[in-house]
Amino acid sequence: MELNERQHKIIEIVREQAPITGEQIAEHLNVTRATLRPDLSILTMSGFLEARPRVGYFYTGQTSETLLNEEIRKLTVGDFQSVPIVISEAASAYQAVCEMFVEDVGSLFVIDEKGLLAGVLSRKDLLRTAIGSQDMNQVPVSVIMSRMPNIAYCRQNDTVVDVADLLITKEVDSVPVVHTKGQGFEVVGRMTKTNITKAFVSLGKRK
Amino acid sequence: MELNERQHKIIEIVREQAPITGEQIAEHLNVTRATLRPDLSILTMSGFLEARPRVGYFYTGQTSETLLNEEIRKLTVGDFQSVPIVISEAASAYQAVCEMFVEDVGSLFVIDEKGLLAGVLSRKDLLRTAIGSQDMNQVPVSVIMSRMPNIAYCRQNDTVVDVADLLITKEVDSVPVVHTKGQGFEVVGRMTKTNITKAFVSLGKRK
Repeated sequence: MELNERQHKIIEIVREQAPITGEQIAEHLNVTRATLRPDLSILTMSGFLEARPRVGYFYTGQTSETLLNEEIRKLTVGDFQSVPIVISEAASAYQAVCEMFVEDVGSLFVIDEKGLLAGVLSRKDLLRTAIGSQDMNQVPVSVIMSRMPNIAYCRQNDTVVDVADLLITKEVDSVPVVHTKGQGFEVVGRMTKTNITKAFVSLGKRK
Repeated sequence: MELNERQHKIIEIVREQAPITGEQIAEHLNVTRATLRPDLSILTMSGFLEARPRVGYFYTGQTSETLLNEEIRKLTVGDFQSVPIVISEAASAYQAVCEMFVEDVGSLFVIDEKGLLAGVLSRKDLLRTAIGSQDMNQVPVSVIMSRMPNIAYCRQNDTVVDVADLLITKEVDSVPVVHTKGQGFEVVGRMTKTNITKAFVSLGKRK
Protein backbone atom coordinates (compact mmCIF):
# COMPACT_ATOMS: atom_id res chain seq x y z
CA MET A 1 0.00 0.00 0.00
CA GLU A 2 1.15 3.51 -0.78
CA LEU A 3 1.34 5.87 2.20
CA ASN A 4 0.98 9.60 1.69
CA GLU A 5 3.53 12.17 2.84
CA ARG A 6 1.78 12.94 6.11
CA GLN A 7 1.48 9.27 7.00
CA HIS A 8 5.23 8.85 6.46
CA LYS A 9 5.85 11.87 8.72
CA ILE A 10 3.64 10.39 11.43
CA ILE A 11 5.59 7.13 11.32
CA GLU A 12 8.85 9.12 11.66
CA ILE A 13 7.53 11.04 14.67
CA VAL A 14 6.24 7.92 16.41
CA ARG A 15 9.44 6.04 15.69
CA GLU A 16 11.50 8.76 17.38
CA GLN A 17 9.23 9.69 20.26
CA ALA A 18 7.06 6.67 21.15
CA PRO A 19 4.99 6.44 23.22
CA ILE A 20 3.32 9.60 21.97
CA THR A 21 -0.36 10.62 22.03
CA GLY A 22 -2.46 11.64 19.05
CA GLU A 23 -2.64 15.17 20.50
CA GLN A 24 1.16 15.43 20.60
CA ILE A 25 1.52 14.15 17.02
CA ALA A 26 -1.06 16.72 15.90
CA GLU A 27 0.94 19.50 17.60
CA HIS A 28 4.12 18.43 15.81
CA LEU A 29 2.36 18.63 12.48
CA ASN A 30 0.42 21.82 13.27
CA VAL A 31 -2.93 20.23 12.53
CA THR A 32 -5.92 19.31 14.65
CA ARG A 33 -6.39 15.88 16.23
CA ALA A 34 -9.52 15.46 14.07
CA THR A 35 -7.54 16.00 10.87
CA LEU A 36 -5.17 13.20 11.86
CA ARG A 37 -7.86 10.70 12.81
CA PRO A 38 -8.14 8.94 9.39
CA ASP A 39 -4.34 8.77 9.03
CA LEU A 40 -3.93 7.26 12.49
CA SER A 41 -6.67 4.69 11.83
CA ILE A 42 -5.02 3.67 8.59
CA LEU A 43 -1.60 3.35 10.18
CA THR A 44 -2.94 1.37 13.11
CA MET A 45 -5.16 -0.95 11.12
CA SER A 46 -2.46 -1.64 8.56
CA GLY A 47 -0.05 -2.60 11.32
CA PHE A 48 2.51 0.21 11.11
CA LEU A 49 1.55 1.68 14.50
CA GLU A 50 0.11 0.21 17.63
CA ALA A 51 -2.23 2.25 19.84
CA ARG A 52 -2.35 1.52 23.58
CA PRO A 53 -5.21 3.13 25.49
CA ARG A 54 -4.13 5.91 27.87
CA VAL A 55 -0.48 5.52 26.78
CA GLY A 56 -0.18 6.48 23.14
CA TYR A 57 1.11 5.23 19.80
CA PHE A 58 4.04 2.85 19.35
CA TYR A 59 6.00 2.00 16.22
CA THR A 60 5.70 -1.72 15.46
CA GLY A 61 8.66 -1.85 13.12
CA GLN A 62 6.31 -3.27 10.51
CA THR A 63 6.75 -1.86 7.04
CA SER A 64 5.41 -2.85 3.65
CA GLU A 65 8.68 -4.75 3.25
CA THR A 66 8.11 -6.85 6.33
CA LEU A 67 4.62 -7.59 5.02
CA LEU A 68 6.17 -8.70 1.70
CA ASN A 69 8.57 -10.75 3.76
CA GLU A 70 5.70 -12.61 5.43
CA GLU A 71 4.13 -13.47 2.06
CA ILE A 72 7.42 -14.92 0.84
CA ARG A 73 7.95 -17.00 3.98
CA LYS A 74 4.65 -18.78 3.27
CA LEU A 75 6.32 -20.64 0.35
CA THR A 76 7.66 -24.01 1.50
CA VAL A 77 9.87 -26.67 -0.05
CA GLY A 78 7.01 -29.19 -0.35
CA ASP A 79 5.27 -26.99 -2.92
CA PHE A 80 8.29 -26.43 -5.17
CA GLN A 81 10.60 -29.48 -4.90
CA SER A 82 11.41 -31.79 -7.84
CA VAL A 83 11.74 -35.56 -8.01
CA PRO A 84 15.24 -36.64 -6.89
CA ILE A 85 17.42 -38.68 -9.25
CA VAL A 86 19.56 -41.17 -7.33
CA ILE A 87 22.46 -43.43 -8.26
CA SER A 88 24.27 -46.21 -6.41
CA GLU A 89 27.67 -45.64 -4.76
CA ALA A 90 29.06 -48.44 -6.88
CA ALA A 91 28.13 -46.82 -10.22
CA SER A 92 30.93 -45.43 -12.41
CA ALA A 93 31.48 -41.77 -13.25
CA TYR A 94 30.61 -42.64 -16.85
CA GLN A 95 27.24 -44.11 -15.79
CA ALA A 96 26.62 -40.98 -13.74
CA VAL A 97 27.21 -38.68 -16.74
CA CYS A 98 24.81 -40.79 -18.83
CA GLU A 99 22.19 -40.69 -16.08
CA MET A 100 22.59 -36.91 -15.83
CA PHE A 101 22.00 -36.48 -19.58
CA VAL A 102 19.11 -38.95 -19.72
CA GLU A 103 17.34 -37.30 -16.78
CA ASP A 104 18.50 -33.80 -17.76
CA VAL A 105 19.51 -32.82 -14.22
CA GLY A 106 22.51 -30.93 -12.87
CA SER A 107 23.12 -33.16 -9.86
CA LEU A 108 22.60 -36.72 -8.70
CA PHE A 109 22.18 -38.00 -5.16
CA VAL A 110 24.28 -41.03 -4.32
CA ILE A 111 22.73 -43.67 -2.05
CA ASP A 112 24.29 -46.54 -0.10
CA GLU A 113 23.17 -50.18 -0.03
CA LYS A 114 20.44 -49.31 2.54
CA GLY A 115 19.02 -46.66 0.22
CA LEU A 116 20.23 -43.83 2.48
CA LEU A 117 21.94 -40.62 1.35
CA ALA A 118 25.69 -41.13 0.96
CA GLY A 119 26.73 -38.22 -1.25
CA VAL A 120 25.97 -35.62 -3.91
CA LEU A 121 27.45 -35.52 -7.40
CA SER A 122 27.41 -32.32 -9.48
CA ARG A 123 28.05 -31.59 -13.16
CA LYS A 124 31.18 -29.80 -11.97
CA ASP A 125 32.50 -32.94 -10.17
CA LEU A 126 31.97 -34.95 -13.34
CA LEU A 127 33.51 -32.34 -15.65
CA ARG A 128 36.61 -32.24 -13.41
CA THR A 129 36.90 -36.02 -13.62
CA ALA A 130 36.23 -36.04 -17.37
CA ILE A 131 39.18 -33.79 -18.20
CA GLY A 132 41.48 -35.76 -15.88
CA SER A 133 43.62 -38.63 -17.07
CA GLN A 134 41.55 -41.46 -15.56
CA ASP A 135 39.13 -43.69 -17.46
CA MET A 136 35.60 -42.56 -16.47
CA ASN A 137 34.47 -46.19 -16.55
CA GLN A 138 37.00 -47.10 -13.87
CA VAL A 139 36.19 -44.30 -11.40
CA PRO A 140 33.36 -45.10 -8.95
CA VAL A 141 31.14 -42.13 -8.06
CA SER A 142 31.95 -42.66 -4.37
CA VAL A 143 35.48 -41.35 -5.08
CA ILE A 144 34.44 -38.05 -6.67
CA MET A 145 31.19 -37.16 -4.86
CA SER A 146 30.75 -34.76 -1.93
CA ARG A 147 30.27 -37.08 1.00
CA MET A 148 28.05 -37.16 4.11
CA PRO A 149 28.13 -35.52 6.63
CA ASN A 150 29.49 -32.58 4.56
CA ILE A 151 26.28 -32.20 2.60
CA ALA A 152 23.73 -29.44 2.91
CA TYR A 153 20.13 -30.70 2.92
CA CYS A 154 16.65 -29.47 3.71
CA ARG A 155 13.24 -30.71 4.87
CA GLN A 156 9.86 -30.51 3.15
CA ASN A 157 8.46 -27.94 5.57
CA ASP A 158 11.46 -25.57 5.36
CA THR A 159 10.74 -22.24 3.70
CA VAL A 160 11.91 -21.74 0.11
CA VAL A 161 13.76 -18.59 1.16
CA ASP A 162 15.82 -20.48 3.78
CA VAL A 163 16.80 -23.07 1.18
CA ALA A 164 17.69 -20.29 -1.28
CA ASP A 165 19.95 -18.82 1.40
CA LEU A 166 21.50 -22.27 2.01
CA LEU A 167 22.28 -22.74 -1.72
CA ILE A 168 24.01 -19.34 -1.81
CA THR A 169 25.91 -19.81 1.46
CA LYS A 170 27.12 -23.34 0.64
CA GLU A 171 27.77 -22.45 -3.02
CA VAL A 172 25.89 -25.45 -4.38
CA ASP A 173 23.30 -25.74 -7.16
CA SER A 174 21.02 -28.17 -5.35
CA VAL A 175 20.31 -29.85 -2.03
CA PRO A 176 18.44 -33.07 -1.30
CA VAL A 177 15.09 -32.89 0.51
CA VAL A 178 15.32 -35.56 3.22
CA HIS A 179 13.38 -37.49 5.85
CA THR A 180 15.23 -38.96 8.81
CA LYS A 181 15.29 -42.78 8.60
CA GLY A 182 17.14 -44.74 11.26
CA GLN A 183 20.66 -43.34 11.56
CA GLY A 184 20.53 -41.68 8.15
CA PHE A 185 18.46 -39.77 5.61
CA GLU A 186 16.07 -40.96 2.97
CA VAL A 187 16.03 -38.69 -0.11
CA VAL A 188 12.47 -37.61 -0.93
CA GLY A 189 13.08 -34.62 -3.18
CA ARG A 190 15.46 -32.17 -4.80
CA MET A 191 15.61 -28.37 -4.40
CA THR A 192 17.70 -26.59 -7.02
CA LYS A 193 18.30 -23.03 -8.18
CA THR A 194 15.79 -23.89 -10.93
CA ASN A 195 13.10 -24.54 -8.29
CA ILE A 196 13.99 -21.25 -6.60
CA THR A 197 13.77 -19.46 -9.96
CA LYS A 198 10.32 -21.00 -10.51
CA ALA A 199 9.20 -19.89 -7.04
CA PHE A 200 10.40 -16.37 -7.88
CA VAL A 201 8.44 -16.36 -11.14
CA SER A 202 5.32 -17.61 -9.32
CA LEU A 203 5.56 -14.71 -6.86
CA GLY A 204 5.98 -12.13 -9.58
CA LYS A 205 3.37 -13.45 -11.96
CA ARG A 206 0.50 -14.54 -9.75
CA LYS A 207 -2.74 -12.64 -10.04
CA MET B 1 -1.79 -5.99 5.31
CA GLU B 2 -4.34 -8.11 7.13
CA LEU B 3 -7.96 -7.10 6.52
CA ASN B 4 -10.60 -7.87 9.11
CA GLU B 5 -13.77 -9.84 8.42
CA ARG B 6 -15.94 -6.77 7.85
CA GLN B 7 -13.44 -5.29 5.40
CA HIS B 8 -13.47 -8.54 3.41
CA LYS B 9 -17.29 -8.43 3.37
CA ILE B 10 -17.24 -4.84 2.12
CA ILE B 11 -14.92 -5.82 -0.73
CA GLU B 12 -17.29 -8.66 -1.65
CA ILE B 13 -20.32 -6.33 -1.67
CA VAL B 14 -18.56 -3.70 -3.78
CA ARG B 15 -17.23 -6.30 -6.17
CA GLU B 16 -20.75 -7.58 -6.84
CA GLN B 17 -22.72 -4.34 -6.83
CA ALA B 18 -20.39 -1.51 -7.84
CA PRO B 19 -21.00 1.37 -8.07
CA ILE B 20 -22.53 1.39 -4.61
CA THR B 21 -22.72 4.19 -2.02
CA GLY B 22 -21.45 4.03 1.56
CA GLU B 23 -25.08 4.24 2.75
CA GLN B 24 -26.04 1.19 0.71
CA ILE B 25 -23.07 -0.81 1.97
CA ALA B 26 -24.02 0.13 5.55
CA GLU B 27 -27.57 -1.12 4.95
CA HIS B 28 -26.27 -4.46 3.65
CA LEU B 29 -24.23 -4.91 6.78
CA ASN B 30 -26.88 -3.58 9.18
CA VAL B 31 -24.57 -0.94 10.63
CA THR B 32 -24.50 2.86 10.46
CA ARG B 33 -22.57 4.80 7.84
CA ALA B 34 -20.43 6.23 10.69
CA THR B 35 -19.39 2.75 11.82
CA LEU B 36 -18.15 1.95 8.34
CA ARG B 37 -16.19 5.16 7.85
CA PRO B 38 -12.78 3.88 9.10
CA ASP B 39 -13.12 0.64 7.11
CA LEU B 40 -13.96 2.52 3.93
CA SER B 41 -11.02 4.90 4.42
CA ILE B 42 -8.66 1.98 4.92
CA LEU B 43 -9.92 0.16 1.86
CA THR B 44 -9.77 3.27 -0.29
CA MET B 45 -6.35 4.43 0.86
CA SER B 46 -4.84 0.99 0.55
CA GLY B 47 -6.06 0.76 -3.02
CA PHE B 48 -8.68 -2.00 -2.75
CA LEU B 49 -11.60 0.33 -3.49
CA GLU B 50 -11.93 3.51 -5.44
CA ALA B 51 -14.40 6.20 -4.33
CA ARG B 52 -15.93 8.49 -6.97
CA PRO B 53 -17.75 11.55 -5.63
CA ARG B 54 -21.54 11.41 -6.12
CA VAL B 55 -21.28 7.93 -7.71
CA GLY B 56 -20.05 5.48 -5.12
CA TYR B 57 -17.41 2.88 -4.51
CA PHE B 58 -15.75 0.73 -7.17
CA TYR B 59 -13.63 -2.39 -6.82
CA THR B 60 -10.14 -1.82 -8.28
CA GLY B 61 -9.21 -5.51 -8.51
CA GLN B 62 -6.16 -4.74 -6.42
CA THR B 63 -5.31 -7.36 -3.81
CA SER B 64 -2.39 -7.83 -1.44
CA GLU B 65 -0.97 -10.19 -4.06
CA THR B 66 -0.95 -7.56 -6.77
CA LEU B 67 0.78 -5.23 -4.30
CA LEU B 68 3.41 -7.94 -3.65
CA ASN B 69 3.68 -8.27 -7.39
CA GLU B 70 4.49 -4.59 -7.76
CA GLU B 71 7.26 -4.79 -5.15
CA ILE B 72 8.86 -7.70 -7.00
CA ARG B 73 8.70 -5.94 -10.35
CA LYS B 74 10.83 -3.12 -8.90
CA LEU B 75 13.87 -5.43 -8.94
CA THR B 76 15.86 -4.97 -12.14
CA VAL B 77 18.76 -6.80 -13.78
CA GLY B 78 21.17 -3.92 -13.24
CA ASP B 79 21.01 -4.42 -9.46
CA PHE B 80 21.62 -8.19 -9.49
CA GLN B 81 23.78 -9.04 -12.53
CA SER B 82 27.30 -10.52 -12.28
CA VAL B 83 30.43 -9.80 -14.26
CA PRO B 84 30.42 -11.75 -17.56
CA ILE B 85 33.28 -14.16 -18.32
CA VAL B 86 34.04 -14.21 -22.04
CA ILE B 87 36.20 -16.39 -24.26
CA SER B 88 37.25 -16.13 -27.90
CA GLU B 89 35.59 -18.23 -30.63
CA ALA B 90 39.01 -19.63 -31.50
CA ALA B 91 39.69 -21.03 -28.00
CA SER B 92 39.62 -24.81 -27.50
CA ALA B 93 37.09 -26.72 -25.42
CA TYR B 94 39.96 -27.58 -23.04
CA GLN B 95 40.77 -23.89 -22.54
CA ALA B 96 37.08 -23.24 -21.91
CA VAL B 97 36.91 -25.89 -19.16
CA CYS B 98 40.00 -24.39 -17.51
CA GLU B 99 38.51 -20.90 -17.71
CA MET B 100 35.27 -22.19 -16.19
CA PHE B 101 37.12 -23.71 -13.23
CA VAL B 102 39.42 -20.72 -12.73
CA GLU B 103 36.52 -18.27 -12.76
CA ASP B 104 34.15 -20.71 -11.02
CA VAL B 105 31.24 -20.03 -13.37
CA GLY B 106 28.71 -22.34 -15.01
CA SER B 107 28.72 -20.66 -18.41
CA LEU B 108 30.98 -18.64 -20.67
CA PHE B 109 30.02 -16.13 -23.34
CA VAL B 110 31.84 -16.57 -26.63
CA ILE B 111 32.80 -13.41 -28.54
CA ASP B 112 33.88 -12.88 -32.12
CA GLU B 113 36.89 -10.88 -33.37
CA LYS B 114 34.90 -7.62 -33.01
CA GLY B 115 34.17 -8.39 -29.36
CA LEU B 116 30.49 -9.04 -30.09
CA LEU B 117 28.41 -11.92 -28.72
CA ALA B 118 28.78 -15.03 -30.89
CA GLY B 119 27.60 -17.82 -28.58
CA VAL B 120 27.10 -19.29 -25.13
CA LEU B 121 28.92 -22.28 -23.68
CA SER B 122 27.52 -24.22 -20.72
CA ARG B 123 29.01 -26.81 -18.35
CA LYS B 124 26.63 -29.27 -20.01
CA ASP B 125 28.05 -28.52 -23.52
CA LEU B 126 31.57 -29.13 -22.20
CA LEU B 127 30.66 -32.30 -20.29
CA ARG B 128 29.07 -33.71 -23.45
CA THR B 129 32.27 -32.96 -25.39
CA ALA B 130 34.49 -34.31 -22.61
CA ILE B 131 32.92 -37.77 -22.64
CA GLY B 132 33.01 -37.91 -26.44
CA SER B 133 35.89 -39.42 -28.36
CA GLN B 134 37.47 -36.19 -29.59
CA ASP B 135 40.55 -34.51 -28.10
CA MET B 136 39.31 -31.46 -26.11
CA ASN B 137 42.39 -29.54 -27.27
CA GLN B 138 41.40 -29.97 -30.90
CA VAL B 139 37.75 -28.88 -30.60
CA PRO B 140 37.18 -25.11 -30.95
CA VAL B 141 34.41 -23.70 -28.74
CA SER B 142 32.65 -22.35 -31.84
CA VAL B 143 31.73 -25.95 -32.74
CA ILE B 144 30.05 -26.87 -29.47
CA MET B 145 28.51 -23.57 -28.32
CA SER B 146 24.91 -22.41 -28.71
CA ARG B 147 25.11 -19.89 -31.49
CA MET B 148 23.56 -16.48 -32.25
CA PRO B 149 20.76 -15.74 -33.08
CA ASN B 150 19.45 -18.72 -31.06
CA ILE B 151 20.53 -17.23 -27.76
CA ALA B 152 18.28 -15.78 -25.09
CA TYR B 153 19.58 -12.49 -23.66
CA CYS B 154 18.36 -9.60 -21.52
CA ARG B 155 18.95 -5.89 -20.94
CA GLN B 156 20.03 -4.07 -17.78
CA ASN B 157 16.64 -2.45 -17.22
CA ASP B 158 14.63 -5.66 -17.62
CA THR B 159 12.92 -6.88 -14.45
CA VAL B 160 14.49 -9.78 -12.58
CA VAL B 161 11.19 -11.66 -12.72
CA ASP B 162 11.05 -11.46 -16.54
CA VAL B 163 14.59 -12.84 -16.76
CA ALA B 164 13.69 -15.61 -14.28
CA ASP B 165 10.79 -16.50 -16.55
CA LEU B 166 13.12 -16.46 -19.59
CA LEU B 167 15.60 -18.86 -17.89
CA ILE B 168 12.76 -21.28 -17.12
CA THR B 169 11.12 -21.04 -20.55
CA LYS B 170 14.37 -21.42 -22.51
CA GLU B 171 15.71 -24.07 -20.10
CA VAL B 172 19.08 -22.37 -19.66
CA ASP B 173 21.10 -21.59 -16.52
CA SER B 174 22.21 -18.12 -17.60
CA VAL B 175 21.71 -15.37 -20.16
CA PRO B 176 24.06 -12.57 -21.18
CA VAL B 177 23.10 -8.98 -20.33
CA VAL B 178 23.69 -7.04 -23.54
CA HIS B 179 23.89 -3.56 -25.10
CA THR B 180 23.24 -3.16 -28.79
CA LYS B 181 26.47 -2.23 -30.64
CA GLY B 182 26.40 -1.82 -34.40
CA GLN B 183 24.84 -4.95 -35.91
CA GLY B 184 25.45 -7.05 -32.79
CA PHE B 185 25.51 -7.17 -29.02
CA GLU B 186 28.18 -6.23 -26.55
CA VAL B 187 28.09 -8.41 -23.40
CA VAL B 188 27.98 -6.23 -20.27
CA GLY B 189 26.79 -8.73 -17.66
CA ARG B 190 25.55 -12.17 -16.76
CA MET B 191 22.23 -13.19 -15.19
CA THR B 192 22.12 -16.73 -13.81
CA LYS B 193 19.86 -18.81 -11.61
CA THR B 194 22.34 -17.93 -8.85
CA ASN B 195 21.54 -14.21 -9.32
CA ILE B 196 17.81 -15.02 -9.24
CA THR B 197 18.32 -17.05 -6.05
CA LYS B 198 20.15 -14.08 -4.49
CA ALA B 199 17.34 -11.73 -5.50
CA PHE B 200 14.86 -14.13 -3.88
CA VAL B 201 16.88 -14.20 -0.66
CA SER B 202 17.10 -10.40 -0.66
CA LEU B 203 13.30 -10.16 -0.89
CA GLY B 204 12.74 -12.62 1.92
CA LYS B 205 15.42 -11.35 4.26
CA ARG B 206 15.31 -7.59 3.95
CA LYS B 207 14.21 -5.66 6.99
